[in-house]
Amino acid sequence: MLLSGGLDSAVVLYFAKRQGYKCHSLIFDYGQRHIREVSFAVRIAKAAGCAYRILKIGLPWKGSALLDKKIRVPDKITKGVPATYVPGRNIIFLSFALSFAETIKAQAIFIGAHAQDYSGYPDCRPEFLAAFSRMAKAGTVGRLNILAPLLHKNKSEIILLGRKLGVPFNLTWSCYRGDKRPCGKCDSCYYRAKGFKEAGAVDPLIK
Amino acid sequence: MLLSGGLDSAVVLYFAKRQGYKCHSLIFDYGQRHIREVSFAVRIAKAAGCAYRILKIGLPWKGSALLDKKIRVPDKITKGVPATYVPGRNIIFLSFALSFAETIKAQAIFIGAHAQDYSGYPDCRPEFLAAFSRMAKAGTVGRLNILAPLLHKNKSEIILLGRKLGVPFNLTWSCYRGDKRPCGKCDSCYYRAKGFKEAGAVDPLIK
Repeated sequence: MLLSGGLDSAVVLYFAKRQGYKCHSLIFDYGQRHIREVSFAVRIAKAAGCAYRILKIGLPWKGSALLDKKIRVPDKITKGVPATYVPGRNIIFLSFALSFAETIKAQAIFIGAHAQDYSGYPDCRPEFLAAFSRMAKAGTVGRLNILAPLLHKNKSEIILLGRKLGVPFNLTWSCYRGDKRPCGKCDSCYYRAKGFKEAGAVDPLIK
Repeated sequence: MLLSGGLDSAVVLYFAKRQGYKCHSLIFDYGQRHIREVSFAVRIAKAAGCAYRILKIGLPWKGSALLDKKIRVPDKITKGVPATYVPGRNIIFLSFALSFAETIKAQAIFIGAHAQDYSGYPDCRPEFLAAFSRMAKAGTVGRLNILAPLLHKNKSEIILLGRKLGVPFNLTWSCYRGDKRPCGKCDSCYYRAKGFKEAGAVDPLIK
């Protein structure tokens, strides 16, 4: 289970648990600006009663607003690939998950990627996940499934699913800026707020 | 450029240089038993006059003879996937390379993988590399090529190519055991010795 501390992967964790999986979460400290999300991920894993480990894999190269404090996190939704894109991030995360899953002989890797109401990251698209699955089958011994149960859901559908599953949304963190309170302005805050609104729900983090 | 400190990736580095590429090597400290290879990789990068950086990504899970000193490095060539297989290793390395290459807008990633005279690792096979290339195209913005110029060569052909390119083989390290001298018995020593013999050459490391 890739667990970021955000809302989506928390829903996936509870979804997988409900399906009967014994989950083990990988949480990444990759030098992200919003390192706050790591502590939220830990709290979610604990709330779900799930094993976890934090992997420190600091990416020494910059070039993304999430890695480099000199690059501004944009306020508005941008067209195309935004400044917060971290090249290869999900690919690296999934690769570690693959290594771990093959080592412990896990059945599946869960990821919270979804392609709707999202920032246009190339490593969240259905065609990427399908290609990663094929690559994983070619490059490992086992037969792991890569599962992205939210792939075709939008944010409000994800929130409604999470409510049904009892996800503690107050333990999830989305804001890219990572200050003490969500900024309410970045892409990630925007989609979170839009999702809660469309779901007719209140975000417990900012109430 | 993925640079391990071994013979193959050293040949690829010199090959790429000869083709006119400005190379940047990534060297991985992943908790390998033969950590010695890292210092050899640094020496090769310096000899080739090529930029490099060492990435420390310690894999906290064991399960391979290269990660776990409790598991014996086998003396003899084993059939099937050997105990020295590290699940997902090349996938992780290539993923970091992908992230870095996209960040610096590199044209290509070079890897020394080859499918002959080798230990049967699934992440060295041609079909894996082809699938990784497709996944990379689907999951990133750029159009990076993943190049494995040794893919269909055997060890003696690689050594002959390296000689033509002036590769300093005395600066390469192959032994999985990673003691002060090559053990001469592990898979990696076996193939190295066989390669030098078939190439009619002397291994400067053990002369």
